[in-house]
Amino acid sequence: MTTPLIVVADNLQITNPVIAKALEKEDPKPIVEIVKMCVEKGAQAIDINSGPLTKTPEKMAFLVDVVQDVTDLPILLDTSNPKALEAGLTQCRNKTIINGFSLEPEKLKYILPLAKKYNTQIIGYLLYPNSHVPSDETGRMNVALQLFEEFQKMDMAPDQLIIDPIIAPVLWENGNQQDMGIISLIRNLPDLLGFEVATIAGISNLTSGKGPKPKKKILEASFTGMLAGAGLHMALMNMLHHMTLDTIRACNALSSEMIFAWDAV
Amino acid sequence: MTTPLIVVADNLQITNPVIAKALEKEDPKPIVEIVKMCVEKGAQAIDINSGPLTKTPEKMAFLVDVVQDVTDLPILLDTSNPKALEAGLTQCRNKTIINGFSLEPEKLKYILPLAKKYNTQIIGYLLYPNSHVPSDETGRMNVALQLFEEFQKMDMAPDQLIIDPIIAPVLWENGNQQDMGIISLIRNLPDLLGFEVATIAGISNLTSGKGPKPKKKILEASFTGMLAGAGLHMALMNMLHHMTLDTIRACNALSSEMIFAWDAV
Repeated sequence: MTTPLIVVADNLQITNPVIAKALEKEDPKPIVEIVKMCVEKGAQAIDINSGPLTKTPEKMAFLVDVVQDVTDLPILLDTSNPKALEAGLTQCRNKTIINGFSLEPEKLKYILPLAKKYNTQIIGYLLYPNSHVPSDETGRMNVALQLFEEFQKMDMAPDQLIIDPIIAPVLWENGNQQDMGIISLIRNLPDLLGFEVATIAGISNLTSGKGPKPKKKILEASFTGMLAGAGLHMALMNMLHHMTLDTIRACNALSSEMIFAWDAV
Repeated sequence: MTTPLIVVADNLQITNPVIAKALEKEDPKPIVEIVKMCVEKGAQAIDINSGPLTKTPEKMAFLVDVVQDVTDLPILLDTSNPKALEAGLTQCRNKTIINGFSLEPEKLKYILPLAKKYNTQIIGYLLYPNSHVPSDETGRMNVALQLFEEFQKMDMAPDQLIIDPIIAPVLWENGNQQDMGIISLIRNLPDLLGFEVATIAGISNLTSGKGPKPKKKILEASFTGMLAGAGLHMALMNMLHHMTLDTIRACNALSSEMIFAWDAV
């Protein structure tokens, strides 16, 4: 199956000093501006990457409030801190997705159960229990099987799981070979797990690090087309990357169930 | 498996009046210019689409000579006329690919045996015996199985077969749904036939007919990325379509077995 890619904005990141300062002061305005931009550019969900918020987990509730006052799009709560997660989960009226868990023991113990408790979807990263990234497709397949096994122990519906294979930056050793393993993995996951499991990929990872900007743009857009062709469901991306957005728009005009229209491209 | 896409130029077409006139006069110059342009832009094989050459099948030998005097790239002999094909096959020193056969009785009887006789690769179109195009993935899968059965009767090596699923123009009724069926088919063909069968797609078909040029470019490039992500092996394309070439270059920088280099993008 090839369905239209769902665009998830990754623009709300605590690593952005504008966001960090706004959060510190609890000033909604700069955050509202970014969320409005994402909505205008066609985001279909907003990822709130708050970082761990170790000392102030309650601030996740503030972030959720700012976002849901602008839009009723689904919100991804992107933090490794279970307290911050729960503050967001109790505050959020919009559809909520937990981002996310993995085979890391702390995540299995404290994050995965929150998806059960709050009946949300949850993203599962393909990471080893020691937080390392598998180096090839076979490694990712094995982790996906173990992750699904852990997920099933919670007695949740299969469509609550979204798998993130973790895109490798091309500048990593064998990064591009790993990413081609991910393309193949996405093609094979439905056979491997026995159902059309949802998948998400953090597109911006591909070109992180040094590189010429125009080539980064074409590489990211082309890779996004490949991911769409492999059967990816959700693209977590920077809404300011127009070439990637244009590519997704074109892919989605093709994979839509509507009659084709040039206006959709 | 995802391997770099092989770029096949579709620019030598008898439907181009420049080519038609050059062929009529047996004037190599305009043909040489087009072939040189294709080679400069990175074509890895040249398709000679001569039409049926009903009255002058021997002219295929002239076309082959003009091309092989410019380049030693593989040549695809693209005609439904077995006499023209054989004239090309006997003349061609370069690697030769027959383009192609199908379940149509005349093609099975007169074209397929030429691949056996001259020990070449041959492209098999997914068409019904009555020349109709299957309307969905299941239809194409059934035709692929029958085509492979007919191919096997000739006792040729599996890697001599290249399957062309026939891209549907988006302006056809359900054209885009058909093309998404093709994306899925390309993903599934290795499982279906039990080996990594080679595939080719005529990219220009997608946007044939009316439509705004800039949107045609982005649609073709994005769809090519999807085909690469699905596992396509060869793209038959117009070498003047730069956005599609840029996309293939980027996809191939990722799927290359070489260490990633920005220079390759």
